[in-house]
Amino acid sequence: NEPHLRNTDKMTKNSANLRVRLPALIFALEVMIIVLYAVFVTYDDHTNALLQTNMTKPMENAVYQDYPFFADIQMMIFIGFGCLLSFFQRYGFGGMVFNFLTATFAIQWAILIQGFFHFYYDGKIHLGVINLINAEFACAVVLISFGAVLGKTSPVQLLVSLFEILFEYLKINDAGGSILIHVFACYFGLGVTFILYRPSLNDGHSKECTSYQSDMLSVLGTLFLWVFWPSFNCALTLRGDDQHRAILHTFIGLSASTLTAFALSAMLNKNGKLSMADVQNVTLAGGVTVGASVDMMITPAAAYALGMLGCTACMLGYKYLSPFLARRLRVQDQCGIHNLHGLTGLISTVAAIYPQLAELQELIPGLKAGLGRTAKEQALYQLAALGSTIALAAVGGMLTGLLLKLPYLASPSDEFCFDDELFFNVPADYNQAPVAQDLGCTETQDKHVLGNERSTEI
Amino acid sequence: NEPHLRNTDKMTKNSANLRVRLPALIFALEVMIIVLYAVFVTYDDHTNALLQTNMTKPMENAVYQDYPFFADIQMMIFIGFGCLLSFFQRYGFGGMVFNFLTATFAIQWAILIQGFFHFYYDGKIHLGVINLINAEFACAVVLISFGAVLGKTSPVQLLVSLFEILFEYLKINDAGGSILIHVFACYFGLGVTFILYRPSLNDGHSKECTSYQSDMLSVLGTLFLWVFWPSFNCALTLRGDDQHRAILHTFIGLSASTLTAFALSAMLNKNGKLSMADVQNVTLAGGVTVGASVDMMITPAAAYALGMLGCTACMLGYKYLSPFLARRLRVQDQCGIHNLHGLTGLISTVAAIYPQLAELQELIPGLKAGLGRTAKEQALYQLAALGSTIALAAVGGMLTGLLLKLPYLASPSDEFCFDDELFFNVPADYNQAPVAQDLGCTETQDKHVLGNERSTEI
Amino acid sequence: NEPHLRNTDKMTKNSANLRVRLPALIFALEVMIIVLYAVFVTYDDHTNALLQTNMTKPMENAVYQDYPFFADIQMMIFIGFGCLLSFFQRYGFGGMVFNFLTATFAIQWAILIQGFFHFYYDGKIHLGVINLINAEFACAVVLISFGAVLGKTSPVQLLVSLFEILFEYLKINDAGGSILIHVFACYFGLGVTFILYRPSLNDGHSKECTSYQSDMLSVLGTLFLWVFWPSFNCALTLRGDDQHRAILHTFIGLSASTLTAFALSAMLNKNGKLSMADVQNVTLAGGVTVGASVDMMITPAAAYALGMLGCTACMLGYKYLSPFLARRLRVQDQCGIHNLHGLTGLISTVAAIYPQLAELQELIPGLKAGLGRTAKEQALYQLAALGSTIALAAVGGMLTGLLLKLPYLASPSDEFCFDDELFFNVPADYNQAPVAQDLGCTETQDKHVLGNERSTEI
Repeated sequence: NEPHLRNTDKMTKNSANLRVRLPALIFALEVMIIVLYAVFVTYDDHTNALLQTNMTKPMENAVYQDYPFFADIQMMIFIGFGCLLSFFQRYGFGGMVFNFLTATFAIQWAILIQGFFHFYYDGKIHLGVINLINAEFACAVVLISFGAVLGKTSPVQLLVSLFEILFEYLKINDAGGSILIHVFACYFGLGVTFILYRPSLNDGHSKECTSYQSDMLSVLGTLFLWVFWPSFNCALTLRGDDQHRAILHTFIGLSASTLTAFALSAMLNKNGKLSMADVQNVTLAGGVTVGASVDMMITPAAAYALGMLGCTACMLGYKYLSPFLARRLRVQDQCGIHNLHGLTGLISTVAAIYPQLAELQELIPGLKAGLGRTAKEQALYQLAALGSTIALAAVGGMLTGLLLKLPYLASPSDEFCFDDELFFNVPADYNQAPVAQDLGCTETQDKHVLGNERSTEI
Repeated sequence: NEPHLRNTDKMTKNSANLRVRLPALIFALEVMIIVLYAVFVTYDDHTNALLQTNMTKPMENAVYQDYPFFADIQMMIFIGFGCLLSFFQRYGFGGMVFNFLTATFAIQWAILIQGFFHFYYDGKIHLGVINLINAEFACAVVLISFGAVLGKTSPVQLLVSLFEILFEYLKINDAGGSILIHVFACYFGLGVTFILYRPSLNDGHSKECTSYQSDMLSVLGTLFLWVFWPSFNCALTLRGDDQHRAILHTFIGLSASTLTAFALSAMLNKNGKLSMADVQNVTLAGGVTVGASVDMMITPAAAYALGMLGCTACMLGYKYLSPFLARRLRVQDQCGIHNLHGLTGLISTVAAIYPQLAELQELIPGLKAGLGRTAKEQALYQLAALGSTIALAAVGGMLTGLLLKLPYLASPSDEFCFDDELFFNVPADYNQAPVAQDLGCTETQDKHVLGNERSTEI
Repeated sequence: NEPHLRNTDKMTKNSANLRVRLPALIFALEVMIIVLYAVFVTYDDHTNALLQTNMTKPMENAVYQDYPFFADIQMMIFIGFGCLLSFFQRYGFGGMVFNFLTATFAIQWAILIQGFFHFYYDGKIHLGVINLINAEFACAVVLISFGAVLGKTSPVQLLVSLFEILFEYLKINDAGGSILIHVFACYFGLGVTFILYRPSLNDGHSKECTSYQSDMLSVLGTLFLWVFWPSFNCALTLRGDDQHRAILHTFIGLSASTLTAFALSAMLNKNGKLSMADVQNVTLAGGVTVGASVDMMITPAAAYALGMLGCTACMLGYKYLSPFLARRLRVQDQCGIHNLHGLTGLISTVAAIYPQLAELQELIPGLKAGLGRTAKEQALYQLAALGSTIALAAVGGMLTGLLLKLPYLASPSDEFCFDDELFFNVPADYNQAPVAQDLGCTETQDKHVLGNERSTEI
């Protein structure tokens, strides 16, 4: 135990010590935020008391339409993601707490950046709960990307990486469609992890496994995401029947992917047993796959089929694609975001092209005659938007990765990846529990690891 | 440890291996669901874009009335039940994850079956969030019944047992009253467990106890159920003051049963200490007991009294009736659903007869003259409905139990009851923690077990 | 282990045995509650069926405005507080379950007391969900005070201490302003703990530390409080833009205090590592600091500044003031409520004086001329109200502390503080985990303890 402690001390006394770096960065960011708030941010029509008149009906304030969705997405971001990312045996603090820190700053940052893009007039950003919802979507992008480098980055790096939000607003909004946030987040994260490649992790890491309690907490996080995903998918769709359909389709898609995930997990894992990693991740695929067409009249059966399809792609991705990416392409995708958000996002976007066209045709009957050509053009346009999103995200991610390699950002050494002791004062029982390698974790257990074959002994 | 591992392997290589059975069953069910969706399911008036006109006000869409209650009940089903059922030391995965699987399929299945019974016209089932709420009630029935056989059934058996929903719709809706779902669920579950009787479990099982962490998680589940129970009890009552009263009465009833549960727990347990099993279960009794009269003008005091009464019955049931049922009547009610849902449901139904009559009289003054006779008749009708619900539930449960005894359904052997290792790839620390028997669990600890005297040394 | 067990037995066989005391007290309280309900409580205009007419629109019932906020605050009280208070390694049951018991009774008790003060006319207390929301605020006061004596009081003492609610209604409502609940709660709790001073605890206690799992659960509680805090701060403000601003300001204040807490934690803790105790507590300071001006037009930048300011005061309080209070002033503030609710509450109240005056001036232009004098007077009046709140709270707390020293209230001995075994049947693994002292907890770990220097080796 002694030499181990000495190593941590050495580590924290040098490159990974947060004492100066983290406060310096945070205070600098906070000063920037508060100055921008003071100079540029004011209330919008629904929060400005001076714009309310005798005729204003308080109950018609937008807050009553927006706040319930805001609260639901808050649950997903802080509780759902927080628990889900706590699946490592010795990185529970890091998973939950760095998620908390990153999300909090991401939302503040997004309020300002999207404010300039979308809520800026008369020289001011105008603020209401609707801005917070939009900022939460930007934050979700960040947290998805975070999954690619979980356990391998310091809080300083995480805060620096929030440049992502700038790239995001450069790109996503010209293409429209909330599904692109999954695709963007995924390829951005992959770009970062490509640059931060750590060869030694491809041979496994003694702390890169779960414990009984961490698996329980992580699946609890999945359930929170599952329960509130309909709110996420409908929050920015049109009010009324559009939002109603978005809820239905999301629920049906998630249900289909959940059932499929259990089937595939038993089928593809060794001994015919279920894997908690599958239950934690693959069950959610349907929520992404229905995303691009979630408010359209696609029929419930199509939502169901999309859920099954997305789940299957996600599962096969975890099983075959992720190990390949890690070993051959230097892409160590820690949580498998390429499976849960990338593949499913691609499927969703492509699958939405036809119903989008049909709906367009419905709305503008004049299109009917020339639909053949228009449809092809429109489809190509959609695919081009998808391609350019991927390209920008990957390039942005790689640039950000380069930035994160700068010295002084407290990057953990390979040895201290997935280890709470590096950045936290840990309780006395932390070093009492046997570490995975003593227990033969690398042999008997499913891993969220990408360089290792994940339960491939079929 | 070695022979133990070999046993698991043997078990999973043979009768309890899910590799073929679970995927085969799930895929068959999914094909059935998707075909039924494609042929029979369409959008209802609030989700069909084609039925919206220029006059439609989006904010008057039913989704804004229904979705909040839907989301609350989702929390109860996936988070509340999931955590509550994770109380076994070594069956946390099973409790939370099989709840997830069962609930997901039960809701899909209920959407279709209740769709044919209640939302079918013009050759189609018409779908909106209101259907999902109704399906969640059917799902709650399934999860309550599940409590009777927790830890003793495979996921294949759980999915097969969802025939329950068919029986449910055959019966419950002709009698009316959401309270019957508790009574039906209880006697159905007891019917199943009666057939699946395992004599050896009456002598205790080495893994049939809780751990410190599992007790914490389970009581957290109780709290989620407690917090959202008012939404459950009011979701299907009339809008307006009825729903308002339902919330009040549920809250008051739960509060009364919670206080009473603490008092009785200290009074009836050995050494005058509190039992976590009581806190996890008995506190919730009041939510059931107020159920049948929840929207009536029964007065807050009556709601309080119902909570105290239900709690007392539930507590005494756990203490004296459950052991008797297990030893003498072959009814091994694992979670004590007969106490929390059966006894309380009976009390609730009987207690609601008088205010129902009074309310009837209020509405139809003409009844006044002959109320004496009408009241008696009405009361008898209610009791007959209750009796026939119990009978059908018990018979349906027993038939389902027989079905579950068919080979190939991966039923766990006695040895592997309450053991996650049978159906899950478990983390490396799973076999590190000492099992209960080594710790003398059967002597010093409260048990959720029914064959054993539960804390009877007063 | 043997002598340890014998001690517990001895303890519970004598002074700390709940068998008679707890049931006797609870049943007495329940009889009192049900009699008061029966005699004095009836439905209000929104829950009384007899007051609904043909003209009543059900969807305009107050329940649809009030219930969502009620449910959110329920989550804070039962889940958020429950988890947050479970941070001790061996007092998780106590933290979560005594919070459950105390909150349940506090709300019932507050419904009656505030009913007499605020909802009483025609000889009756009139009940609707709005009463429940008000009662939840009274309950929050109790739970905050509870933090000062966590782990050092029996459930009997906790129920007796609910006299607090009487004091509360004597004082808070004449001064107005929900921020006073934090100040009142804090000084009441400090008054109690001053009287219950336990000198031996100033030298540390072997069980007064956290475990990895308890820290995880506790930070989860923090996240629930964080997510729903905007609902808490806006529930009793005016509908419309006021409520909208309250949500925005709370969110911004919390975000600012969260970022600041991470910065200060890394800066002030040994080795430049983060402390979970800071993440669990100090992050929330901003929610309190914005409280007194939460619905005013203070600007988003001011909300941000208030969050940073409150967080800094709270952090310095934990670091320097709490140890001083414990060692020199006999005030052992177990959870540091003086930092999270006291200092922040004072800042909030003082910071709100100017915008309150400005708003007053806006509304009543006539004030303008004489504003100088009026403002000074008004400010003095506010400060006087604050002072008298503190005085009454402290005196009330000390009186309650004296009451709690009465015999027969099952007060735990010093040895059995922070120990679930005293009041609960604990699972078999409870005594397996090594206790803190064996692990050197007092040396290597952050403590929530107040008599000890908390991470002072800068």
